[in-house]
Amino acid sequence: MKKLNEEGPRVYLGLVHHPINNKRGEVVTTSVTNLDIHDISRSCRTFGVTNYFIITPLKAQQELLKRILGHWNEDKSSAYNPDRSDALSIAQCVSSVGDAVRSVMEVEKELGGPEEDPFVVVTGANFKMYDGVAEDLKEKLKIDKRPILLLFGTGWGLTAPIVEGADYRLEPIFGSSLDGYNHLSVRSAVAIYLDRLLGASESK
Amino acid sequence: MKKLNEEGPRVYLGLVHHPINNKRGEVVTTSVTNLDIHDISRSCRTFGVTNYFIITPLKAQQELLKRILGHWNEDKSSAYNPDRSDALSIAQCVSSVGDAVRSVMEVEKELGGPEEDPFVVVTGANFKMYDGVAEDLKEKLKIDKRPILLLFGTGWGLTAPIVEGADYRLEPIFGSSLDGYNHLSVRSAVAIYLDRLLGASESK
Repeated sequence: MKKLNEEGPRVYLGLVHHPINNKRGEVVTTSVTNLDIHDISRSCRTFGVTNYFIITPLKAQQELLKRILGHWNEDKSSAYNPDRSDALSIAQCVSSVGDAVRSVMEVEKELGGPEEDPFVVVTGANFKMYDGVAEDLKEKLKIDKRPILLLFGTGWGLTAPIVEGADYRLEPIFGSSLDGYNHLSVRSAVAIYLDRLLGASESK
Repeated sequence: MKKLNEEGPRVYLGLVHHPINNKRGEVVTTSVTNLDIHDISRSCRTFGVTNYFIITPLKAQQELLKRILGHWNEDKSSAYNPDRSDALSIAQCVSSVGDAVRSVMEVEKELGGPEEDPFVVVTGANFKMYDGVAEDLKEKLKIDKRPILLLFGTGWGLTAPIVEGADYRLEPIFGSSLDGYNHLSVRSAVAIYLDRLLGASESK
């Protein structure tokens, strides 16, 4: 059984496939991709994220996801690439952002923590306003022991009700191209935020 | 014609497919993946990297790469997803690390800079020793105007001659998992290093 990590912040991550904006601002459901499952699981495991929720209401997508996660649990795949299989052990599918919140509460209770709802943090490349930078949130996490749920959008980003309903909006990642190009993959954005929030370095 | 960026550091990035160590420490050539092309191009463009070199001596892989890059240059693909096509404009294939170094010198000369060989920086999750952290290198880049070539390994990492022959070895990315799990994808590692070296944030 896992133990409650008393030392560091307890961070959960959710990749939202619904509700999501498309290019025209309509609310859609995006597809689960094999790559997001693997790359983001590996980043989550490396930075000590407790659980990685892949959020989609589509039953067919949930089934696909279960098949992929199941494949890597099989002895053969696990023996060939144990690190890959290990990373996926923290990935799971839930139907909605609300279900992710409830899952965090359940896991926290199992780990011996108080049954508290997580502090929901959202990110987005297109945010015009935000509550603080990663460093601020990192400081806050040291003092406040409440678990956090970090939500990332797919497609053209999280919808306004999700963004406005969250507890905290993080500063977007600003690139440094001279012409303002700023189109990171969600996988790259996840890696950067986890490093900023949870990374260890001699310089930090 | 592009202009020499006089303000910031000029950074070039190389993804090395040969020479690479495999799991058993043998020298191999890894395969080019579609995903590395796209994700790393987008990260490079976002953080203002001048050129992204995909390094493989295999002719068949070079042909594949040219077909992929060519596809995104076509009008149809470009119109559907201009940001994707834009990102790939900085990606190119070269046959060896030496060719990447020579390409940097040519591009620098074209941009009006001195014909100077780049400062070669290597990274690796398994480094036991290193020359400094990203913050040190960032400071150095502000003072020294020499272009840098940042090399990333695929497979089980860059070979010893490449690592030892480089000018600078960067601190590995240390995760924060309680059990020491540390297996980021190269795509995630690239995103994190570019953010550390070139990212703009209100907190920086």
